[in-house]
Amino acid sequence: MPRSRARRDAPLEEREFHSWLSRHLTGPSRGLLPVGDDAAALRVPRGRVAVLSTDSLVEGTHFLIESPAASVGAAAANVSLSDVAAKGAQPAALLLDLIVPVGTPRRWAEDLVRAADRAGASVGAPLVGGDTKPGPTRTVVSTVLGWGRPDRLVARGGARPGDVLVTTGTVGRGGLAAHRLGRTRSGRTSARKKALVGILDIRPRVREGLVLAEFAHAMLDTSDGLADASWLLAGASGCRTVVEEGLLPLALGLRASASSPGHRRSLAFYGGDYELLAALPAGTVARARAAVRRTGGRLTVIGGVERGRGAVLRNSGRSVRMPLGGWRPFSVPSPPIP
Amino acid sequence: MPRSRARRDAPLEEREFHSWLSRHLTGPSRGLLPVGDDAAALRVPRGRVAVLSTDSLVEGTHFLIESPAASVGAAAANVSLSDVAAKGAQPAALLLDLIVPVGTPRRWAEDLVRAADRAGASVGAPLVGGDTKPGPTRTVVSTVLGWGRPDRLVARGGARPGDVLVTTGTVGRGGLAAHRLGRTRSGRTSARKKALVGILDIRPRVREGLVLAEFAHAMLDTSDGLADASWLLAGASGCRTVVEEGLLPLALGLRASASSPGHRRSLAFYGGDYELLAALPAGTVARARAAVRRTGGRLTVIGGVERGRGAVLRNSGRSVRMPLGGWRPFSVPSPPIP
Repeated sequence: MPRSRARRDAPLEEREFHSWLSRHLTGPSRGLLPVGDDAAALRVPRGRVAVLSTDSLVEGTHFLIESPAASVGAAAANVSLSDVAAKGAQPAALLLDLIVPVGTPRRWAEDLVRAADRAGASVGAPLVGGDTKPGPTRTVVSTVLGWGRPDRLVARGGARPGDVLVTTGTVGRGGLAAHRLGRTRSGRTSARKKALVGILDIRPRVREGLVLAEFAHAMLDTSDGLADASWLLAGASGCRTVVEEGLLPLALGLRASASSPGHRRSLAFYGGDYELLAALPAGTVARARAAVRRTGGRLTVIGGVERGRGAVLRNSGRSVRMPLGGWRPFSVPSPPIP
Repeated sequence: MPRSRARRDAPLEEREFHSWLSRHLTGPSRGLLPVGDDAAALRVPRGRVAVLSTDSLVEGTHFLIESPAASVGAAAANVSLSDVAAKGAQPAALLLDLIVPVGTPRRWAEDLVRAADRAGASVGAPLVGGDTKPGPTRTVVSTVLGWGRPDRLVARGGARPGDVLVTTGTVGRGGLAAHRLGRTRSGRTSARKKALVGILDIRPRVREGLVLAEFAHAMLDTSDGLADASWLLAGASGCRTVVEEGLLPLALGLRASASSPGHRRSLAFYGGDYELLAALPAGTVARARAAVRRTGGRLTVIGGVERGRGAVLRNSGRSVRMPLGGWRPFSVPSPPIP
């Protein structure tokens, strides 16, 4: 066995890992302090505000021990990158905390960290720092620092009646991916397995977020599904959000995969899509759509904002309360949609 | 039982926790986005660089389930604050990732978060964001963003032969605290219990770090003990560090508590003191000491930097290799010091 292979099979050891990191990461050369120092440091672009978000993935809750390390690493970076993108900021730096049992193969940590670094670097936020600690369960925490324009920070709470509701990408990609994996891996759709993989292919909408920040009154990512996001935007804004079911840009294959209209809605509304949901002034939609298209992205009008409270689902003129589901980490599973 | 008491005994639930956070934290009002939004945002002081550090505490490794939540929260904040202080930067914002089993009492999370927020706010870095996730083991990850002057960022690697080695505070406070706890809690000095509490009373040396940054060629915190820090500073700088044992400002009670000279050295060199170890040009020591004293702190010369490699311990003119110990997270316990 070649020496490098043997070393990758060896258990993780902190100082060796630091030395590996200093040779394999894309970002630290851009930093102002060397890898392995107490902290990372980076330059601040002129006239920007700092935007920070953090998120974690836990083995057994968000991924399985057999999940590919690279997928876990990319997902860990992307969940936080998506949050920073949703505020209209440009991600600039990624930090990773890795908590793993003593004896975890170096290979796992290396593959994970390399994938996280690549995911971050691909949208401008290379891995610049982190920490490694022993613990009983593999846990990955990511933190992203981004730079936003102070006049273009978009909160969840600024939507106004008359605004148009738009989404990037498609609806139901997360739910569909989880459904397919649940089916193919265990022969049945295990809710837990679904959740474990629904997060694994996330494309943080950084360019779209930067464009939308110019127009949007409110914005957030659909990390816990469209239903959840439409409730959150409504609640934070003190308005009612209305989603027109017929307008939804459903993910390819979603109709064919769903066993019933209720199942189709569950996949569409409850899966973590990590798209951006935004409320735009009606007069800006055409410009926003053209600008998003120029970045290679897609923007679809899916409803509007009205006076009132809560989130509504409308189909052929009939309105029902948007089922309040999605991923609720500390609660029971989402209710089925009739 | 009053209602508020009953609610504090209730299990943690994410959205309720957000609502509690928005009422009880010191910092978010200073932020540019509301609590519970996808990210936190804050203003950047003119002409500064961003300094970022992250660290984690894991139940069973760094604290026990019976450890007071407030102590864990304060320690979680302080480990990262200490790292940012060690680079000569002013901490500005704290993020916290909380991973806890489903059913964890709200009280525990609230007490922990409130203490972390207070610890951060007391040195200028209130809690501005974070995340809560379920997982099998209580785990707390902190990330601190600080602002540094680009001309005063101090890495570990800039020490030069002829520099003087200084430390803030005392030496052995961490080791002594751990020793006392190990003795009083279990009747014997359990290495694990020692480690679990050695970290719990940390005072990040923020003001001292800002002062030392004006003078220091190299600096780091002694989070893994003085021995470890003197090896790291030597290695990063390509020099030899020499610690004069007779100069060490030993923590009060350390001599009396140690059962032998070797034991005394173990307590002094291997405990996490979270003080700052810095290499200063000899001509600046008097000014640095006066400036640190004006902040209410203490600075002591404990040795120097020479040509050569590694770390050396000198006593009455006799030099020995500095025992390479301290807290090695993925390895065997530190060797005893003869």
